[in-house]
This record gives sequence, C-alpha cells and structure tokens, in this order.
Amino acid sequence: MRVLRLTNTMSHQKEVFKPIHPGRVGMYVCGPTVYGEAHLGHARPGITFDVLSKFLQHLGYKVRYVRNITDVGHLEHDADEGEDKISKKARLEQLEPMEVVQTYTLAYHEAMRALNVAPPSIEPRASGHILEQIEAVKKILDAGYAYESNGSIYFDVCKYNQDHKYGVLSGRSLEDTLEGTRSLDGQGDKRAPYDFALWKKAEPEHIMHWPSPWSEGFPGWHLECSVMGEKYLGSEFDIHGGGMDLMFPHHECEIAQNVACRHTEGVHYWVHNNMITINGQKMGKSLGNFITLPQMFSGNHPALEQAYSPMTIRFFILQAHYRGTLDFSNEALQAAQKGLAKLMQAARDLYALAGRKAPEYKYGAHAGEEGGFGVDPQTCGALNPEIKAAYEAVYEALCDDLNTPAALSAIFELVRIINTAKAGGVKLAAEDLQALCQIFDDIVFGVLGLQDENSAAASDVIDGLMKMVLEQRAKAKAEKDWTTSDHIRDSLNELGIKVKDTKDGVEWSL
Amino acid sequence: MRVLRLTNTMSHQKEVFKPIHPGRVGMYVCGPTVYGEAHLGHARPGITFDVLSKFLQHLGYKVRYVRNITDVGHLEHDADEGEDKISKKARLEQLEPMEVVQTYTLAYHEAMRALNVAPPSIEPRASGHILEQIEAVKKILDAGYAYESNGSIYFDVCKYNQDHKYGVLSGRSLEDTLEGTRSLDGQGDKRAPYDFALWKKAEPEHIMHWPSPWSEGFPGWHLECSVMGEKYLGSEFDIHGGGMDLMFPHHECEIAQNVACRHTEGVHYWVHNNMITINGQKMGKSLGNFITLPQMFSGNHPALEQAYSPMTIRFFILQAHYRGTLDFSNEALQAAQKGLAKLMQAARDLYALAGRKAPEYKYGAHAGEEGGFGVDPQTCGALNPEIKAAYEAVYEALCDDLNTPAALSAIFELVRIINTAKAGGVKLAAEDLQALCQIFDDIVFGVLGLQDENSAAASDVIDGLMKMVLEQRAKAKAEKDWTTSDHIRDSLNELGIKVKDTKDGVEWSL
Repeated sequence: MRVLRLTNTMSHQKEVFKPIHPGRVGMYVCGPTVYGEAHLGHARPGITFDVLSKFLQHLGYKVRYVRNITDVGHLEHDADEGEDKISKKARLEQLEPMEVVQTYTLAYHEAMRALNVAPPSIEPRASGHILEQIEAVKKILDAGYAYESNGSIYFDVCKYNQDHKYGVLSGRSLEDTLEGTRSLDGQGDKRAPYDFALWKKAEPEHIMHWPSPWSEGFPGWHLECSVMGEKYLGSEFDIHGGGMDLMFPHHECEIAQNVACRHTEGVHYWVHNNMITINGQKMGKSLGNFITLPQMFSGNHPALEQAYSPMTIRFFILQAHYRGTLDFSNEALQAAQKGLAKLMQAARDLYALAGRKAPEYKYGAHAGEEGGFGVDPQTCGALNPEIKAAYEAVYEALCDDLNTPAALSAIFELVRIINTAKAGGVKLAAEDLQALCQIFDDIVFGVLGLQDENSAAASDVIDGLMKMVLEQRAKAKAEKDWTTSDHIRDSLNELGIKVKDTKDGVEWSL
Repeated sequence: MRVLRLTNTMSHQKEVFKPIHPGRVGMYVCGPTVYGEAHLGHARPGITFDVLSKFLQHLGYKVRYVRNITDVGHLEHDADEGEDKISKKARLEQLEPMEVVQTYTLAYHEAMRALNVAPPSIEPRASGHILEQIEAVKKILDAGYAYESNGSIYFDVCKYNQDHKYGVLSGRSLEDTLEGTRSLDGQGDKRAPYDFALWKKAEPEHIMHWPSPWSEGFPGWHLECSVMGEKYLGSEFDIHGGGMDLMFPHHECEIAQNVACRHTEGVHYWVHNNMITINGQKMGKSLGNFITLPQMFSGNHPALEQAYSPMTIRFFILQAHYRGTLDFSNEALQAAQKGLAKLMQAARDLYALAGRKAPEYKYGAHAGEEGGFGVDPQTCGALNPEIKAAYEAVYEALCDDLNTPAALSAIFELVRIINTAKAGGVKLAAEDLQALCQIFDDIVFGVLGLQDENSAAASDVIDGLMKMVLEQRAKAKAEKDWTTSDHIRDSLNELGIKVKDTKDGVEWSL
C-alpha cells in the first residue's frame, strides 16, 4: 500500500499514516449544527473529508466514516449562556425544534449531494445519544473532573490541568484561554471561566430537554462528539477531522473529556481544514457576505456576478490545499469554471479516443463496489514517459498530505497530452489510453469526485442531434446556401448553443 | 374549506375529517425498519400518505407529518424472540449495526426521492428516543399494566383487557389473538402469550443495547411509535397511518400503551393502506417474487419484462384506491406506463396551448412555498361546462376518502378535452386554459406528485434541435430529396427517436 502522510495538528508535523487496525480506518468529522441553510463554510470540510475518505478507500482501506448532526440546540455563546440556536429558529419560524432540524438536515444533505459529497458510513445525531452522554457525565463526575452547580454539571478544567494538561492540541495555556472570555450572566455557576458545561439545567423557556440525575436539561456542546466517536469507532480511533475553528475550544474539550472519561486522548491524527474568506473578508451575516450554497448554485446573491455550479465550487475548493485559507471571489470562481470546463472537455475527448464511455458513478457508492470508483492499481502501465511521470505525480501529490492542487496540476499535464493526441500531435498506445482512463475514472471522477455536469442522460441525444444539424450546416456552406447556414446559426444561438469553426472541425458548447 | 372524508379503521366508516386544532393536522405514519433495500411494499404507504399530506396542505391545512425510522433491531418474530434483524444483517455484511441503518436509510430515501415522495416534517429514529421509551415503560409500570420478568418488562394484556378492552382497532378478542401464536423458547418469561415486550433484556450476543433501571437491553418494537407520536404531535393527534399489516398487533399495542401511559387512545383517525401482491401472490423472498425498488427502476429482476420508471410505479399505485389490494404484473404496469405517457403528452400540449411552461417543483417544498404546489382555489373559473364538471369531479373524488383512481378518471376527461382542443375540435377560452392548468399544476404535478420524466433541463434544447431537424426533413420531402429524408429518419432512429406523420403535423417521441 502506498505511504500516505497527513499533517497532524497535534504534532504540527506531516506524519506517516498508520491505522490502528491494519487495512481499516476509523474517521470522525464534526458535522453541521442544523439551524440554517448550508453555506460555503460547510462545503470545505464536506469536500475535504470526502476526498480523504475516498482516497483512503482507493488506497485499499476499509473506511468507517462517522459525521454527526448536531441537533441539540447549542447555546449561542461558547460561554454556555444565551438562547439555544435551534429553539430560536423554531420560535422565529413557528415550528417545533425537530421540524427545524429536519428542514436544515435535508437542506444540508441536498447541498452535499449537489457537491457530490458522499454520505458518511454513520451519521449519528446528538439528540439520539442523550443516554450515552448522561453516562459519560457520570464517568467524568466519578473521575473527579466535574462538579455540580445548580443542576448543571461543569468540567473542572483547573483540576484537569493539574493532573494532565489542558490545551495540548491548540498549544494554549490556561491563561491564554481567558483572553476574549466575556463575563456573562450565569457565569457564576462555574468555578472558573474556562470551565465548560457537560450538562445544562434547562431554563423554563428552553424547549429541548431530557431527564437526568441532575436536572431536566441538555448536554453541553462538546460532549456529543466524544461520546459518538467512542460509540462508533472505539475508545481510540485513527482520524478526527473538522474545521480549524473547532480546534479550540471544541476539540480541546473533547480531548479533556476523553482523558477524564476513558483515560486516553482517543484520537491518533487530528486533521483540520482551514477557513474560507469572501473577497478577503471573513464570511458573516453582519458583513452582508454570508452566501448559502443554494445561493451559490443559483447566483441569487448581490455579491455574485453569476451562478456557480456545484462542480465549479468543488473544483475551486480542490485547487487549494486544505490547510491553506481560501478566498472566494467572482474572478477566482470564474477561473475555476474555465479550468473545470477544460478538464471535462479533455475527459470527453479521452473517452472518445479510448472508444468507451465515461464511468457512471452511483451516489454514495464506495471503492470497488458496483457504481463506485476503483482501488489503486499501484502501477502505471503507460508506455509514454510523460504519462507515466504525470500519473505518478498525481499519486505522490495526494499521498503528500492530500495535496489536491498539486494533483490537479499533474492532471493538467495529462490534459495537455490528451489535447495533443486529439490534434494528432502524438499517438497513444492502448496502454497509454488505459493509464489515462484510470486517472480519470479513479482520481478525477472517483477520489476528487468531479462530475461532468453537461453529461446527463440527455447528452447523447443532444450530441446526436447536434451532429445532424452541423452536417446540414456544412452542406449548406458547401453549397454556398448562406440563408440556410445563417438560419441554423441563429436557431442554435437562440438555444444557447455556440458554434466555433476551428482548423480541426466544428466545436460547439452549450 | 372543502369537506374531506376518510375511512377510519376504528369505526369502519367514512368520517368527516375534523382536526383537533383548526387549520392544523398532526399525522404519524409508520416508516421502514432499515435492514434491507426499499421494496414495493414501501412504495405504497410512502405514496399514499404523501398524497394525503399534500392534499391536506392543498386544502389549506398546515400539516406536521411525522414518519419514523425503526433503527433499533426488532426481533424477527412478533413473539419477542429470535435474532434482531439489524444485527443479523450487520453480522452478514460485517458492518456495525449503525452502518446497516445508514446504508438502508439512504436507500429508502433515494427510492422515496425517485418516487417523488416528499420527506416528512420530522423523521425521528427509535434509537434516538431510548430515554423517552424508558420513561414510558416506567409510567406503564406505575399504572399497573406491566410486569418485570428476568430483567424484561412485558405489557400485561390480560389486566389491561379487564379494565379497558384490548383489540378495539382490529376487533379481535383476546382468544382470537392466541391463534397463530407459536410457542417459542423464552415464552416462559411472559405470563400470557399475548403479552408483549416493552423492554427486553439483551442477550450477550445482542449488539444494540442501552442501560435501563431493569437491565442492559432495548425497547420492545411497539413502544417507539407511541412515544414519538406523543413527543412530536401531542397526547392526542389527528391521523395515524400505516400498512394494513401493522393494524394488528402493532397499532393495537400502541393503543393499549397510550391508554396505559396517558389515558387516551391518542389517535382520532386510523388510516390504513392495503397490501400489494405480485401476479396474485403475496410478495416474499421464498417465492422468488421479492422486488426491490431499484430492481423495478432498472428492470433487473427475472419477474420483470422491462424497467418501470418511478413515475410509472407512482401512477400505477394511484390508479387503485389505497384501501383496495393492488396486484403488480407486467401487463398492468405496461398499461400504467401508457396511461402516464398519455397524461404527460396532454400536459405538454396544455402548457403549449396556454403559452406557458410546466411548473418546476422543488423536492420537498410545501403548498404555497416557492417551488411548491398551490392552495386549493375553491372555485373553477372555466366557461366550458365539461371542464367545470371534470374539475369538480377531481376534488370530489379526492375529498371522498382520497379516491385517486376516480380523480385520475376525471383528469382523463380533461385530457380528452385537451386533445380535442389541440386537434382544433374545440376552442378554449383563457379561463378554460387557466382551470386546466390549475388542475395540472396543483393536482397532477402537485398533490398526486406525478412528474414528466422526459422534461429534464435538457428537454428544451432537445425540443429546439428536433424542430430544426424536422424542418430540414420537411424541406427535403418537399424537394423530393428522399436520400436526405431517409438519412434523417435513420439517424433519428439510431438515437431512439420515433417520428410519426399525422394529419396535424409531425409527432415525435424519445
């Protein structure tokens, strides 16, 4: 099996990935809190860990990928105060909180489906694991790292920090964590401002609450991931992913809970994707640059010059390394759209040269499964040395901390070769075509999960009809029947079809 | 608001539907147990209650539709013994039970999406409500209608029957219920064979279990619906739906639990859809006639002569009243396919006559919402008396216990009028066209949820190109250029397009 290196946030190093159980990978990624439309901030971790999961499968691992749905209303402030976000939305929309949860879970799933982000192996919900969370609180209380205060239970960070060390992931000291902490009402329940809730007693207006030994209440917002990670992946598992913004306090609290509860930090590799910005600014509702994914796909937002298709977004995100920041702008997205179109045209040309059809992927299928992408063939059978080199470069890039921009750059080397072959500038052997098809089948469409958005079922019919219309046009031109050829051009324009005469024949695009 | 009548299984009568809260409807429908592919048996209740929910919304009600996912492994035998179905599947597929749950929940969602069955307002999972189920067991114990036996809790049907009456829904007496009960190992834990489990102590090999005051175990299979119905719809709610096979024992047990737990039967209208058969036989794995929905859609099953599209299945199911049995056969499905094609051709012709486009529905949108279907306009503005009569007949049929076959029959009266209008045999006023479009927008595409499967985004392009090709063909024919016109015919045939010359011009179909 090829050697994969991943940057572990814990060590700040690229480490060789070694799974706990040979051939198997357990991966937990923090999913959305479902109280609003899916937005650009959801797209990046969705796509990043989709590619990681698919690449691991392609390398030959059996992956159990757990991504949760946070449907217990988190409080609006990390300091464990304020209104519960889901209840607030329910009040505003006059719905029952679980209707809010359903509406936005569906919206999230629709957006991920559009982005061709495969569903995880297990998608546990916080509200579905209250009993398990209560059991974990009991364990942490028994271990002496939590205390009760007015029906709520708080994690005793100071005590924990004496015995272990709080802040191992983020490198923050206890003093550091005090910075930026606001003094809020009810803070008085806690012994120290950096303590965090494991169980909160519900205020009378709080709609979502469950019985517990301490109060009618609800679990604190860091607990669910500790509990569901352990339940479905075991006490220790391989990879924990999420956005960089979750590193502190969320993941730091998870580690403390894990140590208190089950005497292990629990996670071998912490992998964090970096944040996105919009025209250089942080995305935020108050800045007027908060863009949901349906708005992206429809172009229906003042900051957008046009609609950007789901695959344009996916391609754009893959053009940057997941650990770097990523700035969305119309210019950058339009460039991505062009790059994607070039790649997809090369794919169509390649399959035509190879005399076969593009693969059909079944949404959610896994490597090796029918309708899924293949398992890494390990060797490149190409005769052409340039193809061989680019093929290897694709794998080297992905194995080097999932370097998707470098992989795409190597793939564009292959695009260049395909274009040359199409123009007759190079002759490709069957082995060359097979190696090229493998990269497109397994990496471009499989692991990177790109799709040709113009190749629906209808596209064969459109291709066929276009061939007939262009024949007619060629005939009219040959006969100098300009009325007919102009009429054809105008009719095609009306349908949004552009025709371009090139030295190699006629090209058209929708 | 129009008067809707529904057959209440409890009274065996068509009753006028009166909701508990004016203008609002609470509806609970038993969803799938997710341990296998979605099959024909899932399609019928899915579609029936989708249409009921959409019709209620169209009439002007705000509907909260709850449909559960049973993801706690039911035992294979109703008598509370045998292996848990989900665990068994997990063992066979070497997966963790929640991976099985996820795989088949996704498969169910994909199939429902293909059938254009909108997602419910809330989709609660049994495993997400263990705490609530434990609380309910406590209440039933406190009320004296349950007893503990070796760590399991059973409902005391005999005691309940003395104070209330067990069997009110199915009309079965306690003696009747003994018929067909098999004597199985472990039956000894129960006082009487008709008693049923509220909580089962987990055997060591049982993978899915939770802590409770009585044992590490899992809830009995009737309890989740009582508990989740109450949680999301209140102690009493309007409609409880499900397949006829769930009436006994499942719904009977729900009623007994509700009375024991909250002193009310809980449900005002019990609505049951009847079963399906295949070529006159019950569907069953042992009979070799078990057909999954993906098999139906692909035709990949020995019993199928061809693929049947999701809309053919939907149309076929709507052609029968939900309370009648429904027999699937190739002949009947092929007839449904033809009927649907005729209906969709009429829809295309109607929108062409009206000079507008067919409505675009957003998956899961509700009445009145953008991309959803409209609210009942109550009056028909048509001038043509035949249109007026058929329009009213559509609503009368749906208001009469959701009589979809009668509604479709009235809609086909409208199809006849559209065809006559297209052929120039009748002139339709703007009001007539509007009334016709309303029925197609709101009922055919909205409430009945049919879709024109040939009208994808690409269809406009195909229509435009076809127009160009057919112009060329007409020109060639006029010029007696048979070579060209034959070539066009052959090329179209190759693309799967059939062209037919009629007295009104050229018709074509893919």
